[in-house]
Amino acid sequence: MPNSAAHDYHAFFDRLADAAAEAILPHFRETIDVENKKSGGFDPVTAADRESEAAMRALINATFPDHGIVGEEYGSENETADHVWVLDPIDGTRSFISGLPVWGVLIGLLVEGRPRYGMMSQPFTGERFFGDGRQSRYQDRDGARLIRTRPCGSVAEASLFTTSPDMFEASDLALFERLSARTRLRRFGMDCYAYCMLAAGFIDIVAETGLSSFDILPLVPIVESAGGRIVSWTGDDDLASGRVVALGDPALHDDVVAILSGRG
Amino acid sequence: MPNSAAHDYHAFFDRLADAAAEAILPHFRETIDVENKKSGGFDPVTAADRESEAAMRALINATFPDHGIVGEEYGSENETADHVWVLDPIDGTRSFISGLPVWGVLIGLLVEGRPRYGMMSQPFTGERFFGDGRQSRYQDRDGARLIRTRPCGSVAEASLFTTSPDMFEASDLALFERLSARTRLRRFGMDCYAYCMLAAGFIDIVAETGLSSFDILPLVPIVESAGGRIVSWTGDDDLASGRVVALGDPALHDDVVAILSGRG
Repeated sequence: MPNSAAHDYHAFFDRLADAAAEAILPHFRETIDVENKKSGGFDPVTAADRESEAAMRALINATFPDHGIVGEEYGSENETADHVWVLDPIDGTRSFISGLPVWGVLIGLLVEGRPRYGMMSQPFTGERFFGDGRQSRYQDRDGARLIRTRPCGSVAEASLFTTSPDMFEASDLALFERLSARTRLRRFGMDCYAYCMLAAGFIDIVAETGLSSFDILPLVPIVESAGGRIVSWTGDDDLASGRVVALGDPALHDDVVAILSGRG
Repeated sequence: MPNSAAHDYHAFFDRLADAAAEAILPHFRETIDVENKKSGGFDPVTAADRESEAAMRALINATFPDHGIVGEEYGSENETADHVWVLDPIDGTRSFISGLPVWGVLIGLLVEGRPRYGMMSQPFTGERFFGDGRQSRYQDRDGARLIRTRPCGSVAEASLFTTSPDMFEASDLALFERLSARTRLRRFGMDCYAYCMLAAGFIDIVAETGLSSFDILPLVPIVESAGGRIVSWTGDDDLASGRVVALGDPALHDDVVAILSGRG
Protein backbone atom coordinates (compact mmCIF):
# COMPACT_ATOMS: atom_id res chain seq x y z
CA MET A 1 0.00 0.00 0.00
CA PRO A 2 1.51 3.36 -1.01
CA ASN A 3 2.06 6.04 1.55
CA SER A 4 -0.87 8.36 0.89
CA ALA A 5 0.85 11.48 2.12
CA ALA A 6 3.71 11.09 -0.32
CA HIS A 7 1.63 9.80 -3.20
CA ASP A 8 1.68 11.58 -6.54
CA TYR A 9 -2.02 12.28 -6.52
CA HIS A 10 -2.00 14.20 -9.80
CA ALA A 11 -0.93 11.09 -11.73
CA PHE A 12 -3.55 9.03 -9.93
CA PHE A 13 -6.28 11.57 -10.70
CA ASP A 14 -5.28 11.32 -14.36
CA ARG A 15 -5.62 7.52 -14.17
CA LEU A 16 -9.10 7.89 -12.67
CA ALA A 17 -10.08 10.40 -15.37
CA ASP A 18 -8.73 8.08 -18.08
CA ALA A 19 -10.81 5.20 -16.71
CA ALA A 20 -13.91 7.39 -16.54
CA ALA A 21 -13.40 8.65 -20.10
CA GLU A 22 -13.06 5.11 -21.42
CA ALA A 23 -16.33 4.14 -19.75
CA ILE A 24 -18.27 7.25 -20.78
CA LEU A 25 -17.25 8.21 -24.31
CA PRO A 26 -18.85 5.21 -26.07
CA HIS A 27 -22.18 6.41 -24.61
CA PHE A 28 -21.81 10.13 -25.43
CA ARG A 29 -24.04 11.03 -28.39
CA GLU A 30 -25.06 7.41 -28.61
CA THR A 31 -28.22 7.17 -30.65
CA ILE A 32 -30.91 5.10 -29.00
CA ASP A 33 -33.11 3.33 -31.49
CA VAL A 34 -36.78 3.87 -30.95
CA GLU A 35 -37.42 0.24 -30.05
CA ASN A 36 -34.99 0.34 -27.14
CA LYS A 37 -36.30 3.67 -26.00
CA LYS A 38 -39.87 2.42 -26.01
CA SER A 39 -38.94 -0.64 -24.00
CA GLY A 40 -37.47 1.72 -21.39
CA GLY A 41 -34.62 -0.72 -20.95
CA PHE A 42 -31.67 1.43 -21.92
CA ASP A 43 -30.51 4.85 -20.92
CA PRO A 44 -27.06 5.93 -22.14
CA VAL A 45 -26.41 8.41 -19.35
CA THR A 46 -27.28 5.90 -16.65
CA ALA A 47 -25.02 3.30 -18.25
CA ALA A 48 -22.20 5.84 -18.62
CA ASP A 49 -22.63 7.12 -15.04
CA ARG A 50 -22.50 3.64 -13.53
CA GLU A 51 -19.69 2.26 -15.64
CA SER A 52 -17.61 5.38 -15.03
CA GLU A 53 -18.07 5.37 -11.25
CA ALA A 54 -17.52 1.60 -11.01
CA ALA A 55 -14.24 1.91 -12.92
CA MET A 56 -13.01 4.71 -10.66
CA ARG A 57 -14.03 2.86 -7.47
CA ALA A 58 -12.18 -0.27 -8.58
CA LEU A 59 -8.99 1.74 -9.12
CA ILE A 60 -9.31 3.52 -5.76
CA ASN A 61 -10.04 0.30 -3.86
CA ALA A 62 -7.07 -1.44 -5.48
CA THR A 63 -4.67 1.44 -4.85
CA PHE A 64 -5.88 2.93 -1.55
CA PRO A 65 -7.87 0.22 0.26
CA ASP A 66 -8.00 2.28 3.47
CA HIS A 67 -9.58 5.32 1.76
CA GLY A 68 -13.29 6.04 1.82
CA ILE A 69 -15.49 6.82 -1.22
CA VAL A 70 -18.65 8.89 -1.66
CA GLY A 71 -20.18 8.61 -5.13
CA GLU A 72 -23.35 9.67 -6.86
CA GLU A 73 -24.28 6.24 -8.19
CA TYR A 74 -23.05 3.72 -5.59
CA GLY A 75 -23.26 5.63 -2.30
CA SER A 76 -20.72 5.74 0.51
CA GLU A 77 -18.13 3.32 1.81
CA ASN A 78 -15.76 3.92 4.73
CA GLU A 79 -16.69 7.58 4.73
CA THR A 80 -15.14 8.29 8.15
CA ALA A 81 -11.65 7.51 6.78
CA ASP A 82 -8.97 10.21 6.86
CA HIS A 83 -8.95 10.21 3.05
CA VAL A 84 -12.29 10.16 1.26
CA TRP A 85 -12.81 10.30 -2.50
CA VAL A 86 -15.83 12.19 -3.81
CA LEU A 87 -16.99 11.12 -7.28
CA ASP A 88 -19.56 12.55 -9.68
CA PRO A 89 -19.09 10.42 -12.78
CA ILE A 90 -21.12 12.80 -14.97
CA ASP A 91 -21.88 16.28 -13.66
CA GLY A 92 -24.35 17.84 -16.10
CA THR A 93 -26.39 14.85 -17.20
CA ARG A 94 -28.90 17.07 -19.01
CA SER A 95 -26.11 18.50 -21.14
CA PHE A 96 -24.80 14.97 -21.69
CA ILE A 97 -28.12 13.63 -22.97
CA SER A 98 -28.49 16.72 -25.18
CA GLY A 99 -25.12 16.08 -26.84
CA LEU A 100 -23.52 19.25 -25.43
CA PRO A 101 -19.85 19.24 -24.37
CA VAL A 102 -20.27 21.13 -21.08
CA TRP A 103 -20.64 18.19 -18.67
CA GLY A 104 -17.67 16.80 -16.75
CA VAL A 105 -16.29 14.03 -14.58
CA LEU A 106 -15.71 15.36 -11.05
CA ILE A 107 -13.13 13.72 -8.79
CA GLY A 108 -12.27 15.10 -5.35
CA LEU A 109 -10.13 13.92 -2.45
CA LEU A 110 -11.00 15.07 1.07
CA VAL A 111 -8.30 14.89 3.71
CA GLU A 112 -9.69 14.99 7.24
CA GLY A 113 -12.97 16.28 5.86
CA ARG A 114 -11.58 19.15 3.77
CA PRO A 115 -11.38 19.20 -0.05
CA ARG A 116 -7.64 19.07 -0.76
CA TYR A 117 -7.40 17.88 -4.39
CA GLY A 118 -9.92 18.16 -7.20
CA MET A 119 -10.21 17.43 -10.91
CA MET A 120 -12.78 18.18 -13.61
CA SER A 121 -12.27 16.15 -16.77
CA GLN A 122 -14.18 16.81 -20.03
CA PRO A 123 -13.36 13.74 -22.09
CA PHE A 124 -14.93 14.89 -25.37
CA THR A 125 -12.92 18.14 -25.60
CA GLY A 126 -9.93 16.55 -23.89
CA GLU A 127 -9.78 19.25 -21.20
CA ARG A 128 -8.78 18.71 -17.57
CA PHE A 129 -8.65 21.11 -14.63
CA PHE A 130 -6.73 20.08 -11.48
CA GLY A 131 -6.25 21.92 -8.20
CA ASP A 132 -3.96 20.67 -5.43
CA GLY A 133 -4.02 23.45 -2.83
CA ARG A 134 -0.92 25.13 -4.24
CA GLN A 135 -1.85 25.71 -7.87
CA SER A 136 -4.55 25.07 -10.41
CA ARG A 137 -3.64 23.56 -13.75
CA TYR A 138 -5.40 23.35 -17.12
CA GLN A 139 -4.57 20.74 -19.69
CA ASP A 140 -5.87 20.07 -23.20
CA ARG A 141 -4.60 18.48 -26.41
CA ASP A 142 -2.19 21.38 -26.91
CA GLY A 143 -0.48 21.16 -23.52
CA ALA A 144 -0.80 22.35 -19.94
CA ARG A 145 -0.68 25.71 -18.19
CA LEU A 146 -1.42 27.20 -14.80
CA ILE A 147 -4.66 29.11 -14.45
CA ARG A 148 -5.68 32.01 -12.19
CA THR A 149 -8.96 33.73 -11.49
CA ARG A 150 -9.22 37.34 -12.64
CA PRO A 151 -9.65 40.44 -10.51
CA CYS A 152 -13.15 41.94 -10.44
CA GLY A 153 -13.56 45.37 -8.96
CA SER A 154 -17.24 45.18 -8.02
CA VAL A 155 -20.44 43.18 -8.44
CA ALA A 156 -21.45 45.67 -11.14
CA GLU A 157 -18.50 44.52 -13.27
CA ALA A 158 -19.08 40.80 -12.68
CA SER A 159 -20.42 38.09 -14.99
CA LEU A 160 -22.69 35.60 -13.22
CA PHE A 161 -23.49 32.01 -14.19
CA THR A 162 -25.87 29.38 -12.91
CA THR A 163 -27.02 26.11 -14.42
CA SER A 164 -30.74 26.98 -14.67
CA PRO A 165 -33.23 29.38 -13.10
CA ASP A 166 -35.36 26.25 -12.65
CA MET A 167 -32.95 24.92 -10.00
CA PHE A 168 -34.00 27.47 -7.37
CA GLU A 169 -36.73 27.40 -4.72
CA ALA A 170 -38.86 30.55 -4.96
CA SER A 171 -37.14 32.40 -2.10
CA ASP A 172 -33.69 31.58 -3.46
CA LEU A 173 -34.76 32.60 -6.96
CA ALA A 174 -35.68 36.03 -5.58
CA LEU A 175 -32.20 36.35 -4.04
CA PHE A 176 -30.57 35.14 -7.25
CA GLU A 177 -32.56 37.71 -9.24
CA ARG A 178 -31.35 40.45 -6.88
CA LEU A 179 -27.78 39.38 -7.49
CA SER A 180 -28.40 39.13 -11.27
CA ALA A 181 -29.82 42.64 -11.38
CA ARG A 182 -26.57 44.00 -9.91
CA THR A 183 -24.21 42.21 -12.34
CA ARG A 184 -23.05 43.11 -15.84
CA LEU A 185 -24.07 39.81 -17.44
CA ARG A 186 -25.81 36.62 -16.41
CA ARG A 187 -25.94 33.36 -18.28
CA PHE A 188 -27.24 29.85 -17.76
CA GLY A 189 -26.49 26.27 -18.58
CA MET A 190 -22.92 25.20 -17.82
CA ASP A 191 -22.82 23.00 -14.68
CA CYS A 192 -19.23 22.26 -13.54
CA TYR A 193 -17.81 23.91 -16.65
CA ALA A 194 -18.73 27.37 -15.31
CA TYR A 195 -16.66 26.87 -12.14
CA CYS A 196 -13.67 25.85 -14.25
CA MET A 197 -14.00 28.92 -16.47
CA LEU A 198 -14.18 30.99 -13.26
CA ALA A 199 -10.93 29.32 -12.14
CA ALA A 200 -9.40 30.16 -15.54
CA GLY A 201 -10.30 33.85 -15.25
CA PHE A 202 -13.25 34.19 -17.68
CA ILE A 203 -16.24 34.23 -15.30
CA ASP A 204 -16.57 36.12 -12.00
CA ILE A 205 -19.41 34.51 -10.02
CA VAL A 206 -21.26 31.17 -10.08
CA ALA A 207 -24.25 30.88 -7.72
CA GLU A 208 -26.25 27.67 -7.38
CA THR A 209 -28.45 25.73 -4.96
CA GLY A 210 -29.41 22.11 -4.44
CA LEU A 211 -25.87 20.82 -4.89
CA SER A 212 -24.74 17.56 -3.33
CA SER A 213 -21.25 17.08 -1.91
CA PHE A 214 -20.07 15.28 -5.05
CA ASP A 215 -21.34 18.17 -7.25
CA ILE A 216 -19.24 20.81 -5.53
CA LEU A 217 -16.41 19.48 -3.30
CA PRO A 218 -14.21 18.38 -6.24
CA LEU A 219 -14.45 21.92 -7.67
CA VAL A 220 -13.27 23.66 -4.47
CA PRO A 221 -9.53 22.95 -4.93
CA ILE A 222 -9.71 23.90 -8.63
CA VAL A 223 -11.24 27.30 -7.82
CA GLU A 224 -9.37 28.06 -4.59
CA SER A 225 -5.92 26.98 -5.85
CA ALA A 226 -6.50 29.42 -8.73
CA GLY A 227 -7.10 32.30 -6.31
CA GLY A 228 -10.90 32.17 -5.95
CA ARG A 229 -13.25 31.25 -3.13
CA ILE A 230 -16.24 28.92 -2.77
CA VAL A 231 -18.57 29.56 0.17
CA SER A 232 -22.19 29.03 1.11
CA TRP A 233 -24.76 31.73 0.38
CA THR A 234 -24.37 32.74 4.05
CA GLY A 235 -20.64 33.19 3.55
CA ASP A 236 -19.11 30.24 5.39
CA ASP A 237 -17.00 27.26 4.35
CA ASP A 238 -19.61 24.61 5.18
CA LEU A 239 -21.21 23.75 1.83
CA ALA A 240 -23.58 21.07 3.22
CA SER A 241 -26.62 23.30 2.56
CA GLY A 242 -25.98 22.93 -1.19
CA ARG A 243 -26.42 26.72 -1.57
CA VAL A 244 -23.05 27.62 -3.00
CA VAL A 245 -21.38 30.65 -4.52
CA ALA A 246 -17.99 30.73 -6.24
CA LEU A 247 -16.09 34.00 -6.50
CA GLY A 248 -13.18 34.56 -8.85
CA ASP A 249 -12.10 37.59 -6.83
CA PRO A 250 -12.43 36.90 -3.07
CA ALA A 251 -12.84 40.66 -2.52
CA LEU A 252 -16.43 40.28 -3.79
CA HIS A 253 -17.26 38.05 -0.79
CA ASP A 254 -18.97 40.53 1.52
CA ASP A 255 -21.07 42.25 -1.15
CA VAL A 256 -22.21 39.00 -2.77
CA VAL A 257 -22.98 37.28 0.54
CA ALA A 258 -24.93 40.34 1.69
CA ILE A 259 -27.12 40.14 -1.44
CA LEU A 260 -27.59 36.36 -1.25
CA SER A 261 -28.44 36.65 2.46
CA GLY A 262 -31.14 39.21 1.70
CA ARG A 263 -29.18 42.04 3.30
CA GLY A 264 -27.80 43.66 0.15
CA MET B 1 -14.75 32.81 -62.35
CA PRO B 2 -16.04 29.34 -61.45
CA ASN B 3 -19.51 28.32 -62.46
CA SER B 4 -21.42 28.72 -59.20
CA ALA B 5 -24.02 26.09 -59.98
CA ALA B 6 -21.42 23.39 -60.43
CA HIS B 7 -19.10 24.56 -57.66
CA ASP B 8 -18.12 22.20 -54.87
CA TYR B 9 -19.53 24.39 -52.17
CA HIS B 10 -18.69 21.99 -49.36
CA ALA B 11 -14.97 22.37 -49.98
CA PHE B 12 -15.36 26.15 -50.18
CA PHE B 13 -17.31 26.27 -46.90
CA ASP B 14 -14.44 24.33 -45.32
CA ARG B 15 -11.99 26.92 -46.64
CA LEU B 16 -14.10 29.73 -45.15
CA ALA B 17 -14.31 27.90 -41.81
CA ASP B 18 -10.54 27.31 -41.84
CA ALA B 19 -9.92 31.03 -42.42
CA ALA B 20 -12.36 31.95 -39.64
CA ALA B 21 -10.74 29.50 -37.21
CA GLU B 22 -7.30 30.88 -37.91
CA ALA B 23 -8.52 34.41 -37.18
CA ILE B 24 -10.50 33.51 -34.06
CA LEU B 25 -8.58 30.90 -32.10
CA PRO B 26 -5.70 33.16 -31.02
CA HIS B 27 -8.33 35.34 -29.30
CA PHE B 28 -10.32 32.53 -27.62
CA ARG B 29 -9.54 32.44 -23.90
CA GLU B 30 -7.10 35.27 -24.42
CA THR B 31 -6.38 36.88 -21.09
CA ILE B 32 -6.70 40.64 -21.14
CA ASP B 33 -4.38 42.35 -18.71
CA VAL B 34 -6.05 44.80 -16.41
CA GLU B 35 -4.29 47.80 -17.91
CA ASN B 36 -5.68 47.13 -21.37
CA LYS B 37 -9.11 46.44 -19.99
CA LYS B 38 -9.14 49.70 -18.08
CA SER B 39 -8.08 51.66 -21.13
CA GLY B 40 -11.06 50.15 -22.94
CA GLY B 41 -8.89 49.79 -26.01
CA PHE B 42 -8.99 46.06 -26.57
CA ASP B 43 -11.77 43.52 -26.71
CA PRO B 44 -10.83 40.00 -27.83
CA VAL B 45 -14.28 39.08 -29.11
CA THR B 46 -14.53 42.23 -31.24
CA ALA B 47 -11.08 41.60 -32.68
CA ALA B 48 -11.92 37.96 -33.36
CA ASP B 49 -15.30 38.82 -34.90
CA ARG B 50 -13.84 41.40 -37.27
CA GLU B 51 -10.76 39.46 -38.31
CA SER B 52 -12.85 36.34 -38.91
CA GLU B 53 -15.47 38.10 -41.05
CA ALA B 54 -12.83 40.07 -42.98
CA ALA B 55 -10.98 36.84 -43.82
CA MET B 56 -14.17 35.15 -45.04
CA ARG B 57 -15.23 38.17 -47.09
CA ALA B 58 -11.83 38.32 -48.78
CA LEU B 59 -12.11 34.68 -49.82
CA ILE B 60 -15.67 35.10 -51.10
CA ASN B 61 -14.84 38.26 -53.05
CA ALA B 62 -11.81 36.60 -54.64
CA THR B 63 -13.68 33.41 -55.56
CA PHE B 64 -17.22 34.62 -56.33
CA PRO B 65 -17.00 38.33 -57.18
CA ASP B 66 -20.63 38.36 -58.39
CA HIS B 67 -22.01 37.03 -55.10
CA GLY B 68 -23.48 39.22 -52.38
CA ILE B 69 -22.52 39.17 -48.68
CA VAL B 70 -24.48 39.99 -45.51
CA GLY B 71 -22.36 39.92 -42.36
CA GLU B 72 -22.74 40.88 -38.74
CA GLU B 73 -19.66 43.10 -38.57
CA TYR B 74 -19.31 44.71 -42.00
CA GLY B 75 -22.89 44.95 -43.26
CA SER B 76 -24.21 44.15 -46.73
CA GLU B 77 -22.74 44.28 -50.20
CA ASN B 78 -24.52 43.35 -53.44
CA GLU B 79 -27.35 41.79 -51.42
CA THR B 80 -29.72 41.57 -54.39
CA ALA B 81 -27.43 39.07 -56.14
CA ASP B 82 -28.72 35.58 -56.95
CA HIS B 83 -26.18 34.12 -54.51
CA VAL B 84 -25.76 35.85 -51.15
CA TRP B 85 -23.47 34.70 -48.32
CA VAL B 86 -24.68 35.20 -44.76
CA LEU B 87 -21.91 35.37 -42.15
CA ASP B 88 -21.95 35.42 -38.37
CA PRO B 89 -18.27 35.20 -37.49
CA ILE B 90 -18.98 34.36 -33.81
CA ASP B 91 -22.49 33.32 -32.85
CA GLY B 92 -22.58 33.19 -29.04
CA THR B 93 -20.24 36.02 -28.11
CA ARG B 94 -21.23 35.76 -24.43
CA SER B 95 -20.12 32.14 -24.38
CA PHE B 96 -16.95 33.13 -26.22
CA ILE B 97 -15.97 35.81 -23.69
CA SER B 98 -16.76 33.39 -20.86
CA GLY B 99 -14.38 30.75 -22.26
CA LEU B 100 -17.15 28.26 -23.05
CA PRO B 101 -16.95 26.06 -26.18
CA VAL B 102 -20.57 26.47 -27.32
CA TRP B 103 -20.21 29.40 -29.72
CA GLY B 104 -19.75 28.87 -33.45
CA VAL B 105 -18.92 30.38 -36.83
CA LEU B 106 -22.06 30.50 -38.99
CA ILE B 107 -21.77 30.52 -42.77
CA GLY B 108 -24.82 30.36 -45.05
CA LEU B 109 -25.40 30.66 -48.76
CA LEU B 110 -28.77 31.90 -50.02
CA VAL B 111 -29.75 31.10 -53.60
CA GLU B 112 -32.52 33.33 -54.90
CA GLY B 113 -33.32 34.35 -51.35
CA ARG B 114 -33.59 30.88 -49.84
CA PRO B 115 -31.02 29.28 -47.50
CA ARG B 116 -29.55 26.46 -49.60
CA TYR B 117 -26.24 25.63 -47.86
CA GLY B 118 -25.17 26.18 -44.26
CA MET B 119 -22.26 25.43 -41.94
CA MET B 120 -21.62 25.77 -38.22
CA SER B 121 -17.96 25.45 -37.28
CA GLN B 122 -16.74 25.17 -33.67
CA PRO B 123 -12.99 25.66 -34.04
CA PHE B 124 -12.01 24.85 -30.44
CA THR B 125 -13.66 21.39 -30.41
CA GLY B 126 -12.94 20.87 -34.11
CA GLU B 127 -16.59 20.16 -34.92
CA ARG B 128 -18.37 21.14 -38.14
CA PHE B 129 -21.99 20.72 -39.21
CA PHE B 130 -22.89 21.16 -42.90
CA GLY B 131 -26.25 20.94 -44.64
CA ASP B 132 -26.65 21.14 -48.42
CA GLY B 133 -30.36 20.48 -48.98
CA ARG B 134 -29.84 16.75 -49.54
CA GLN B 135 -28.06 15.69 -46.35
CA SER B 136 -26.57 17.04 -43.14
CA ARG B 137 -23.08 16.04 -42.19
CA TYR B 138 -21.13 16.15 -38.91
CA GLN B 139 -17.35 16.15 -38.79
CA ASP B 140 -14.88 16.16 -35.92
CA ARG B 141 -11.32 15.01 -35.30
CA ASP B 142 -12.44 11.37 -35.48
CA GLY B 143 -14.10 11.60 -38.89
CA ALA B 144 -17.41 12.44 -40.53
CA ARG B 145 -20.90 11.00 -40.48
CA LEU B 146 -24.39 11.90 -41.61
CA ILE B 147 -26.77 13.17 -38.95
CA ARG B 148 -30.56 12.98 -38.64
CA THR B 149 -33.05 14.54 -36.26
CA ARG B 150 -34.90 12.12 -34.00
CA PRO B 151 -38.59 11.34 -33.91
CA CYS B 152 -40.56 12.94 -31.06
CA GLY B 153 -44.07 11.71 -30.44
CA SER B 154 -45.46 14.78 -28.68
CA VAL B 155 -44.57 18.09 -27.05
CA ALA B 156 -44.76 16.28 -23.69
CA GLU B 157 -41.80 14.09 -24.71
CA ALA B 158 -39.73 16.96 -26.10
CA SER B 159 -36.63 18.66 -24.75
CA LEU B 160 -36.60 22.43 -25.33
CA PHE B 161 -33.62 24.78 -25.51
CA THR B 162 -33.20 28.53 -25.74
CA THR B 163 -30.18 30.74 -25.22
CA SER B 164 -31.53 32.74 -22.27
CA PRO B 165 -34.88 33.66 -20.73
CA ASP B 166 -33.50 37.20 -20.77
CA MET B 167 -33.74 37.30 -24.58
CA PHE B 168 -37.56 37.50 -24.64
CA GLU B 169 -39.94 40.46 -24.56
CA ALA B 170 -42.53 39.98 -21.79
CA SER B 171 -45.30 38.72 -24.08
CA ASP B 172 -42.96 36.27 -25.82
CA LEU B 173 -41.62 35.11 -22.45
CA ALA B 174 -45.18 34.21 -21.45
CA LEU B 175 -45.56 32.13 -24.63
CA PHE B 176 -42.18 30.51 -24.10
CA GLU B 177 -43.15 29.63 -20.51
CA ARG B 178 -46.36 28.01 -21.82
CA LEU B 179 -44.33 25.90 -24.20
CA SER B 180 -41.79 25.06 -21.45
CA ALA B 181 -44.53 23.90 -19.11
CA ARG B 182 -45.67 21.35 -21.69
CA THR B 183 -42.22 19.85 -22.38
CA ARG B 184 -40.22 17.17 -20.56
CA LEU B 185 -37.10 19.27 -20.09
CA ARG B 186 -35.95 22.80 -20.81
CA ARG B 187 -32.45 24.17 -20.73
CA PHE B 188 -30.65 27.38 -21.52
CA GLY B 189 -27.39 28.70 -22.83
CA MET B 190 -26.28 27.12 -26.10
CA ASP B 191 -26.78 29.56 -29.04
CA CYS B 192 -26.13 27.88 -32.43
CA TYR B 193 -24.88 24.72 -30.76
CA ALA B 194 -28.43 23.80 -29.70
CA TYR B 195 -29.67 23.84 -33.32
CA CYS B 196 -26.82 21.55 -34.33
CA MET B 197 -27.59 19.10 -31.52
CA LEU B 198 -31.21 19.19 -32.70
CA ALA B 199 -29.99 18.32 -36.21
CA ALA B 200 -27.95 15.46 -34.71
CA GLY B 201 -30.97 13.99 -32.89
CA PHE B 202 -30.31 14.95 -29.25
CA ILE B 203 -32.65 17.94 -28.78
CA ASP B 204 -36.26 18.26 -29.98
CA ILE B 205 -37.16 21.99 -29.98
CA VAL B 206 -35.21 25.27 -29.96
CA ALA B 207 -37.31 28.45 -29.59
CA GLU B 208 -35.77 31.92 -29.71
CA THR B 209 -36.55 35.53 -30.53
CA GLY B 210 -34.59 38.60 -31.58
CA LEU B 211 -32.51 36.70 -34.15
CA SER B 212 -30.98 38.44 -37.13
CA SER B 213 -30.73 36.80 -40.54
CA PHE B 214 -27.06 35.87 -39.98
CA ASP B 215 -27.96 34.20 -36.64
CA ILE B 216 -30.44 31.79 -38.13
CA LEU B 217 -30.29 31.43 -41.96
CA PRO B 218 -27.01 29.43 -41.96
CA LEU B 219 -28.63 26.94 -39.53
CA VAL B 220 -31.69 26.26 -41.72
CA PRO B 221 -29.98 23.88 -44.18
CA ILE B 222 -28.23 22.04 -41.31
CA VAL B 223 -31.52 21.38 -39.54
CA GLU B 224 -33.74 20.82 -42.58
CA SER B 225 -31.31 18.57 -44.46
CA ALA B 226 -31.25 16.42 -41.30
CA GLY B 227 -35.03 16.02 -41.38
CA GLY B 228 -36.10 18.91 -39.12
CA ARG B 229 -37.92 22.19 -39.73
CA ILE B 230 -37.25 25.83 -38.86
CA VAL B 231 -40.24 28.19 -38.96
CA SER B 232 -41.38 31.43 -37.38
CA TRP B 233 -43.43 31.34 -34.16
CA THR B 234 -46.47 31.83 -36.39
CA GLY B 235 -45.56 28.74 -38.40
CA ASP B 236 -44.33 30.12 -41.72
CA ASP B 237 -41.03 30.04 -43.57
CA ASP B 238 -40.35 33.78 -43.36
CA LEU B 239 -37.91 34.19 -40.46
CA ALA B 240 -37.52 37.98 -40.79
CA SER B 241 -39.39 38.53 -37.51
CA GLY B 242 -36.49 36.89 -35.66
CA ARG B 243 -39.00 34.78 -33.70
CA VAL B 244 -37.86 31.34 -34.67
CA VAL B 245 -38.58 27.75 -33.65
CA ALA B 246 -36.65 24.67 -34.78
CA LEU B 247 -38.32 21.27 -34.64
CA GLY B 248 -36.43 17.98 -34.85
CA ASP B 249 -39.65 16.18 -35.73
CA PRO B 250 -41.75 18.23 -38.19
CA ALA B 251 -44.85 16.46 -36.86
CA LEU B 252 -44.63 18.74 -33.79
CA HIS B 253 -45.26 21.80 -36.01
CA ASP B 254 -48.96 22.37 -35.43
CA ASP B 255 -48.92 21.82 -31.66
CA VAL B 256 -45.84 23.97 -31.09
CA VAL B 257 -47.00 26.78 -33.36
CA ALA B 258 -50.41 26.76 -31.65
CA ILE B 259 -48.73 27.25 -28.25
CA LEU B 260 -46.31 29.93 -29.49
CA SER B 261 -49.18 31.75 -31.21
CA GLY B 262 -51.15 31.83 -27.96
CA ARG B 263 -53.72 29.35 -29.24
CA GLY B 264 -52.41 26.21 -27.47
